[in-house]
Amino acid sequence: MRNIVSDLTLENGGSILLCVMDGVGDISVPELGNRTPLEAASTPNLDGLARTGALGQHIPVARGITPGSGPGHLALFGYDPVECLVGRGALAALGIGFELKHGDLAARINFCTVDEEGIITDRRAGRITTEKCSELVDALRDIQISGVELFVEPVKEHRACVVFRGPGLSQDIHDTDPGLVGEKPLKVRGNSSAAEFTVDVVGEFVSAAMEILKGRQPANALLLRGFALHRDMQGMKERYRLDSAAVALYPMYRGVASMAGMKVYQPETQDLPGEVKEARRALSQGMNFVFLHHKYTDSAAEDGDHQRKIAEIERFDAIIPSILLCGFDVVCITGDHSTPCPMKLHSWHPVPVLINGGPQRTGWSGRFTEREAAAGALGTFRGCELMPLLLAAAGRLAKFGA
Amino acid sequence: MRNIVSDLTLENGGSILLCVMDGVGDISVPELGNRTPLEAASTPNLDGLARTGALGQHIPVARGITPGSGPGHLALFGYDPVECLVGRGALAALGIGFELKHGDLAARINFCTVDEEGIITDRRAGRITTEKCSELVDALRDIQISGVELFVEPVKEHRACVVFRGPGLSQDIHDTDPGLVGEKPLKVRGNSSAAEFTVDVVGEFVSAAMEILKGRQPANALLLRGFALHRDMQGMKERYRLDSAAVALYPMYRGVASMAGMKVYQPETQDLPGEVKEARRALSQGMNFVFLHHKYTDSAAEDGDHQRKIAEIERFDAIIPSILLCGFDVVCITGDHSTPCPMKLHSWHPVPVLINGGPQRTGWSGRFTEREAAAGALGTFRGCELMPLLLAAAGRLAKFGA
Repeated sequence: MRNIVSDLTLENGGSILLCVMDGVGDISVPELGNRTPLEAASTPNLDGLARTGALGQHIPVARGITPGSGPGHLALFGYDPVECLVGRGALAALGIGFELKHGDLAARINFCTVDEEGIITDRRAGRITTEKCSELVDALRDIQISGVELFVEPVKEHRACVVFRGPGLSQDIHDTDPGLVGEKPLKVRGNSSAAEFTVDVVGEFVSAAMEILKGRQPANALLLRGFALHRDMQGMKERYRLDSAAVALYPMYRGVASMAGMKVYQPETQDLPGEVKEARRALSQGMNFVFLHHKYTDSAAEDGDHQRKIAEIERFDAIIPSILLCGFDVVCITGDHSTPCPMKLHSWHPVPVLINGGPQRTGWSGRFTEREAAAGALGTFRGCELMPLLLAAAGRLAKFGA
Repeated sequence: MRNIVSDLTLENGGSILLCVMDGVGDISVPELGNRTPLEAASTPNLDGLARTGALGQHIPVARGITPGSGPGHLALFGYDPVECLVGRGALAALGIGFELKHGDLAARINFCTVDEEGIITDRRAGRITTEKCSELVDALRDIQISGVELFVEPVKEHRACVVFRGPGLSQDIHDTDPGLVGEKPLKVRGNSSAAEFTVDVVGEFVSAAMEILKGRQPANALLLRGFALHRDMQGMKERYRLDSAAVALYPMYRGVASMAGMKVYQPETQDLPGEVKEARRALSQGMNFVFLHHKYTDSAAEDGDHQRKIAEIERFDAIIPSILLCGFDVVCITGDHSTPCPMKLHSWHPVPVLINGGPQRTGWSGRFTEREAAAGALGTFRGCELMPLLLAAAGRLAKFGA
């Protein structure tokens, strides 16, 4: 589908605001009388938008497939997440704001504890503090490997990441993490002959790192996971002729958005009002597509706290009047995936979508809920089909064929 | 889908009538109390068919994509319109009943006015009469180009079309129409080395034509647009073992149908009763698939006239008793796309489908409307998936696998 849509995009048209309430979709919660948080919440503004707009639901990746945050957002930006897979290592680097370049190889680091025989006794090194992690990372930064540039960055507690930069790197490399205690870290191995150079590079890094960490209890070794080569993607400008901006409080969402070529706007205040203010500023500066991210619906759901999720939904509802004052032609509200409170995890369940603006079949829905979304005028569609619907609503797609 | 379905088609089975109310789908119209024309119309016969049949909705091309009439109809005939794109030049030629052959290169002609320096002052030559257009076309028919056969045909007012016939032609040719006044017609240019021969042929035609037109105010030059190579498609007979017929008042729909190998039936009277009479005649002559086209729902919607669209829907409703008397085993009523009156344009919105006949889940729907169609027993499907549903209803598809 990608090429048809790109071929049909027009130079001009309306402006689009895509609001993502992270993990907003849910399932029946027994404590809420088998209602979902969206059903239990008081959302007069969302319900008003539902009545004058159109509802539907999206499947982020495919039926039954639970997306990570990367694939969930890429789908919303119009990229088929099955084709544009962003590896965990790359996401970890993007998540701390590291600017990956085309061809960079990223991997996640776990500091761990091994005994005298080199056998893993704790895969998380007793969850050392983030400060301790930064100290260790500083020590590893001294490592030099010929043929590549090396970056080591702390993430959180025992987690860090490493980026190798240079020509000829491959992601066809196995994790060195055996995934359980009682075994030694695995040798660096490649899956194909094309990975030989990378095996040498990564092997050299691991040996040098092990040497540096030796004796530094409890984090006296490391494990590598999720090798991922970063590839430049076609940006929203080339793809949809959109000048696009991202407003998000967390670096990982800014990272995924910047992969899609969006300009990152940093709110002055780290809250929803601050984000809405930045969205308005982006629009006034000529941006015609703005992605605004609300993180805390997901955080609450991952803690299994349905009352907090309801509160976060209501907090978003309360900001809608100021969102509408920005003056976007098309406003869309959805999630990147469902995070059911009873699961405390991302899930595969369809995600409700609301589009307000442009020519729509209106008056079908009275509230913004999973149930009304499933019966909405927009129907059920893949996450990556949302962008064509938004472009169409904004009058940005030409007719296909005569 | 194509190959599975073709492999499973049976030699025998019921007869199918596919009625297309052009552009029938709509959106909420404020003047109709936010109802659609289908909702506002009085349609006792369609509603009766809805009660005893099954409803659904189709997406002609893809989510958010607005189809032209060509892709919209090809989808209904079971062809994926993304794979079988018919260019504008070919549609223009088909639209006037010109019989394109495999490998023909067609383009649209606009007669225009240029000043002494060759700069376009009117891209439509003051909309000359169709008679004047025919005169100019007659003059152009004298042009001879070695290596190809040439056909020039009038269309309407300042519009005509040209068809080049011969081996080795390419459609990788740019328009000579700059799309605006104040510029000269563009030189004939190709996009690839494979188009070199075609550039020579078309260039020779343009030079000769300009020489002939010189001094003939106001139509003293021409512009070429929409170069399209015509490719033979697999017909309904090879594809579905159907003897198929088309009944349509407008040449363009007859043209698209004949591309799919349908036999064209010309009604004696240019109205719905005349069309139904032809459909009955086609059935009596052994045709087991008949496509019947009702144009005026679309015309009304493109004028933004929801009252006239309602009247056209009701006019179609009134003819249904005589349609049923024809005796087709399966009757389907749908549109090739939506044309919302508030937009006055084709749109991407799903199109309601009604199938009456064959084994169906009935009693789900009480009326033939967009809203009931979205909740109908047939669900939501791509336009090119309609044919398998019709063949199945007519008992014309074998079981897949053992």
